[in-house]
Amino acid sequence: MDFIKVTVDDHVAHLVLDRGKSNAINQQMLDELYQSIVEVQNNPTVEGMILHGKPGFFSAGLDLIALYEYNEEEVQHFWYAFMALIRMFTAFEKPAVAAINGHSPAGGCVLALCCDYRVMAGGEYIIGLNEVPVGIVVPDSIFQLYSFWLGQATAYRYLLEGKLLKPTDAYQCGLVDEVVDEKSIRTAAERQLKKYMQYERHTWRQSKINMRKALIGHLDASQEQSIAAVLKQWWSPATRAILKTIIDNLKNNGPSATK
Amino acid sequence: MDFIKVTVDDHVAHLVLDRGKSNAINQQMLDELYQSIVEVQNNPTVEGMILHGKPGFFSAGLDLIALYEYNEEEVQHFWYAFMALIRMFTAFEKPAVAAINGHSPAGGCVLALCCDYRVMAGGEYIIGLNEVPVGIVVPDSIFQLYSFWLGQATAYRYLLEGKLLKPTDAYQCGLVDEVVDEKSIRTAAERQLKKYMQYERHTWRQSKINMRKALIGHLDASQEQSIAAVLKQWWSPATRAILKTIIDNLKNNGPSATK
Amino acid sequence: MDFIKVTVDDHVAHLVLDRGKSNAINQQMLDELYQSIVEVQNNPTVEGMILHGKPGFFSAGLDLIALYEYNEEEVQHFWYAFMALIRMFTAFEKPAVAAINGHSPAGGCVLALCCDYRVMAGGEYIIGLNEVPVGIVVPDSIFQLYSFWLGQATAYRYLLEGKLLKPTDAYQCGLVDEVVDEKSIRTAAERQLKKYMQYERHTWRQSKINMRKALIGHLDASQEQSIAAVLKQWWSPATRAILKTIIDNLKNNGPSATK
Repeated sequence: MDFIKVTVDDHVAHLVLDRGKSNAINQQMLDELYQSIVEVQNNPTVEGMILHGKPGFFSAGLDLIALYEYNEEEVQHFWYAFMALIRMFTAFEKPAVAAINGHSPAGGCVLALCCDYRVMAGGEYIIGLNEVPVGIVVPDSIFQLYSFWLGQATAYRYLLEGKLLKPTDAYQCGLVDEVVDEKSIRTAAERQLKKYMQYERHTWRQSKINMRKALIGHLDASQEQSIAAVLKQWWSPATRAILKTIIDNLKNNGPSATK
Repeated sequence: MDFIKVTVDDHVAHLVLDRGKSNAINQQMLDELYQSIVEVQNNPTVEGMILHGKPGFFSAGLDLIALYEYNEEEVQHFWYAFMALIRMFTAFEKPAVAAINGHSPAGGCVLALCCDYRVMAGGEYIIGLNEVPVGIVVPDSIFQLYSFWLGQATAYRYLLEGKLLKPTDAYQCGLVDEVVDEKSIRTAAERQLKKYMQYERHTWRQSKINMRKALIGHLDASQEQSIAAVLKQWWSPATRAILKTIIDNLKNNGPSATK
Repeated sequence: MDFIKVTVDDHVAHLVLDRGKSNAINQQMLDELYQSIVEVQNNPTVEGMILHGKPGFFSAGLDLIALYEYNEEEVQHFWYAFMALIRMFTAFEKPAVAAINGHSPAGGCVLALCCDYRVMAGGEYIIGLNEVPVGIVVPDSIFQLYSFWLGQATAYRYLLEGKLLKPTDAYQCGLVDEVVDEKSIRTAAERQLKKYMQYERHTWRQSKINMRKALIGHLDASQEQSIAAVLKQWWSPATRAILKTIIDNLKNNGPSATK
């Protein structure tokens, strides 16, 4: 594992995203994250999971610089793997909390949405699904995931404008459950996780999966058609041009919050 | 009828839950409630229904003391009957109002959720779905029923912790429509019911059923699998142990609010 | 076109509802509106649409005076055409904004609900779905459309009472996105539309359609059964009597807000 660091402490698995400055997700990191979560799921000594980023960046989302260079087959492989990760993570049975200690746009936000609870560090950070301004099509299943937490109307409005929110606004609309001081984020995440872990484990887990039934159904259904629309747009000159501009900015200024 | 008292007054059927101190639901009470609601539905002189508890307890939910003693066949029969009651009550065509004059946890809350409107007495009462801490698995359809009124995010959060709410908090999140003084609860329930009854009856009823179509669909679908998960957990040593502790407390202290 | 005026200005199509004093919708107006929206959809020079009413009335909804005189075949034809309009409008790919410059009850509100954004003029205007008091059955798909913006619980409560809201209350519950001074309504609608139009068009449109997938599904499913229930009620003596009373009032007082 190069980009995901896993430690287990007192029956809690801590998964730390750790790639570069901004935790931008490329194929290898995606594969490692998938594998790590499956291992946590199957490890009988683990009762819960906390997903951490690094100070300043939970995750900047997909690594656009890397993805821009992927060929057709590689991009297609990446998107199928990404949707499979979200499908698997949504059906993760044990309690999962996101400790969002920095920016969390796009794919970073999607990872957090798979958890049962989100603690975010206060400060000048942003979170939200900003696919549309980047030229990436929003699949129905991602809308359903966002709607699960925000309600359909707010999710629709935010997605149509690719809205990015400050922690306090994210708290206001239910995108995060708690905003805390950066130093307290691990403690706050653990406190909530332990709360979940006090309940009879099978009852809790079966209830969680029951409540996510419709969501899992959306992620199971017709991903081919949905991913085909994403890919078609990805290779369009219009989106290539937007990506080029974003990447030029990233290379000149380093990873930015709007990535 | 031993445990359900029905009177009709001015085209309104008043169903009073009346079993012991806390209206805990056993098989006989369930059967009587089912039969009573069907009769109200079929009685052409009745235009609406109010469901009442007794002062202090709308209903404590399932009678865990009784259910704990049921054998495998009896427990299975009970759960099928309970889900059939919820299915039938959800599709009850005439206007229905819950007059929640006391505690209403778990199954008591589910009954109230089937109604079109909930008036609750202010005071030190609790309401909510606290199945998870009791060791009872939450079926998808019950989550959908809770979500109908609270939205998915709030329903999910509350169910994962088995949250019980005070009347004012229940009002805040939309779980109840009105909080009134204990003395005014019948008047308030009647006022709202008469409001519904002023509309052309077939239009109102057909519209109600149309709006509950998805909800009824969830309650129709695959109850076998869903009940099987509840039963499997019910007989697990872990849940038996929780139930034993709750029952010992109930027997020592009388019916408690946390049942 | 007698009742729909279309102009295109700076890639924006302005559709103005223009029939009588209150923009009440009869069969011809419905057909013209359907045709106009399809033409806007297919016109490659048009990037977005604003739907306007006239000062005082966005649209009073269906023309009950006209519909009351339709024979069985005509009424059936009208309802199929109305549901087909809503189906098509819901799947309209380009950004659409409603400039609600006056009363917008019932069918007028439904048209506004199909748009991505609603600006309403402040003042003594009303908006909402008041079918039930008029004796018209609410189809499941219309409930889903209302729920998309208001959430299920609020949509259910409002529909059961046929609630009509003032602009500020409509803003509060999310039925409209913005309330502005009557003079500023076109400017406000254009501002939001231009915001949508700045994004890469295919990404925006495909994302919009993805997010409306479930909604479109509801409008596709089983309209026969749903319309049959509306029609059965329409011809019932009870609803005929309500319509007669409303029409008598309209003829005596001119088009009223409660139509």
